[in-house]
Order: sequence, then structure tokens, then C-alpha cells
Amino acid sequence: MIQDKKVACLLASGYEDSEFRIPYDRLLQAGYSVDVIGAEAGKKLEGYKGKDSIRVTHVIDEVRPEDYAALLIPGGHSPDQLRADERFVKFVKDFDALGRPLAAVCHGPQLLMAAHLVKGRTLTAWETVRGDLEQIPGVHVKDEAVVRDGNWITSRKPADLAPFSEALVQALEAQHAETRI
Amino acid sequence: MIQDKKVACLLASGYEDSEFRIPYDRLLQAGYSVDVIGAEAGKKLEGYKGKDSIRVTHVIDEVRPEDYAALLIPGGHSPDQLRADERFVKFVKDFDALGRPLAAVCHGPQLLMAAHLVKGRTLTAWETVRGDLEQIPGVHVKDEAVVRDGNWITSRKPADLAPFSEALVQALEAQHAETRI
Repeated sequence: MIQDKKVACLLASGYEDSEFRIPYDRLLQAGYSVDVIGAEAGKKLEGYKGKDSIRVTHVIDEVRPEDYAALLIPGGHSPDQLRADERFVKFVKDFDALGRPLAAVCHGPQLLMAAHLVKGRTLTAWETVRGDLEQIPGVHVKDEAVVRDGNWITSRKPADLAPFSEALVQALEAQHAETRI
Repeated sequence: MIQDKKVACLLASGYEDSEFRIPYDRLLQAGYSVDVIGAEAGKKLEGYKGKDSIRVTHVIDEVRPEDYAALLIPGGHSPDQLRADERFVKFVKDFDALGRPLAAVCHGPQLLMAAHLVKGRTLTAWETVRGDLEQIPGVHVKDEAVVRDGNWITSRKPADLAPFSEALVQALEAQHAETRI
């Protein structure tokens, strides 16, 4: 059953500190809980700027996409680490198939690219990742703070985090309202 | 005039330590000098594993592609930093047009991608970067230790560094022999 107050966050060391912390805090403040899903049980993950750290609460093997109301993918060096591990790529693919809110910021969309989900979609990302995406036919790349396309919410960089986090909370509230009707 | 004993290395902090150091040492041993070209004069660049560091010897603004016999692009987080700066992308583009040896390892090919040079070429790269490249039509991606295609020499990871460095030295020697005829 969908846990409508539980959000999955896929994370590895080297994440961009604020791109985890700001959406994470905003979600807690809005009454959601966030599972920090990593490769290794209890491992302390550190932001690459040395300003933030968090422990893995759940290992990728023990979680199921269908148990989460939304998926958050912070940027930095984390997404490129995660996408080298087929289990995270599969989680993203399976989660997207559910149609529930999926929010990726900065280098986060590298995981969407690795899961071969970007064709026919409209999104934004960190400028260098936008350069990659623009070379894949059928991908619509925008240079805007927050881009929404169906269940996807994507943003470019730390400066976009306030509206990015807000968009994620709004999408969760909308989904919550729908499932209550 | 081509300085047939001078190699350009494009580098930013967060490079993969051995991917700079091993080819660098091999080039010096073979009698070449290597200019470490960065964004900021004299800046100390550090490998992300904390095992290596090197100072920038030349700023990107003061160098010209035609002055170098070969180009080396180490991997790690460095290439994605560099490709966010148009000056490095232009240097790669202009250098490739000269047809001289261009060696990129691991994430190094991200700079070739950003310079829109990969269509019609055959190359390898770090596994996640290969995943990106495979989605660009007309790019031939291989999973081999060293891939040579015209002036390009590409490799996948630190384990490939011995044959990668050797291939670069051989390409330089071949070019040297040619210009001496």
C-alpha cells in the first residue's frame, strides 16, 4: 500500500549538501518522512562541500518503489555514483512507472538518463547535464528554475531549491488529495 | 610552431588522482613536458581521493591549442567542472581540429561530448559516461581498455592507465617521426 507520507531519497556520498538538506527539511516540515536509501546499511554519507552529512536509513535491496509517495534525487557527485549500480537505476525506472512525483535537481537527472527515461520528456538539469540531454533526440530541455512534466519536477542548481522543494510538496499534497477522493 | 615535446593537460580540482599522475609521469619519463592548464593561475589542484595534487602552470586564457603536440584529459570530477567553462570546451574543439593525439580517460570524454565532437567517432569512457554516449545517435561506444580512432585515444578507468599512457606516448612518437620526414 502506498505510504502517502513517506518519500524515498536516493543518495551516495559526494551529494551537493544543500540539494539534500533543503528539500529534506522542507518535506519534514510539511509532515512527510524521508527514507535515505543508499548502497550500504547505516553508512554515513557526506556532502562534497563538507557542510552536511546523513546516515543511510534503508539499503536499496530492502525497499520497494511502490511503498513511497514520491522520489527525491539530489545532485552533486551522488547521481553518477548511484547510476553505476543497476539496483538504483531499476528503482528509478520502476518508481517512474507508478506515475508518482519524482523530483531531481542538478546532476539528479543523470539517473533519469541512465534509466533511459528521458526520451519524449521535458526537463531541466545542471548546465553540463543539459548539454548531454540536448544531444539525445526527443528530449526537450529547458533552462528554467522548475520544470514540471507529468510526474517529473526538475531543477538546475542550489539557487532553485526553494521553488523546487515547494513544487515537490505541492505535488505530494495534490496526490494525497486525489487518493482521498 | 608545434612544440613537439609539449603536452597540454586540462585539469580542475576533483580529478581522479592516478588518472593525472600515471600518464603525467609516463610522459615526463618519455621526455615530454606537460603544461597543467587550469582556470586560475598557480592554483593547487587536488585529486578527489586526496592522494595527489599539482599546481596549475598555465591559465586557459594564455594558451593556444596549436602550441601543443598532444592533449591529455584525466577523469574524476574534473571534466564536468571544466566543461561548464566555455574556454575549455573551445580549447578541446580547436585542438581536435588539428588532428593531433587527444587522450581522454574515464570521465574525460565528457569534455568531448560537451564540445559536440562525438558523433561519427568510436570511443570508450567510464561506464556511466558510456551510458550517456550510447544514447547519442552516430556514436560508436566500446567497452575496451584502450580505443583508438584517428587521433583519439580513450580509456575507461584507472585499471586501464598503463596501456592508455603507452598508447599516448606511441602516438606522440609516431607524430614526431612524421613531422621529421
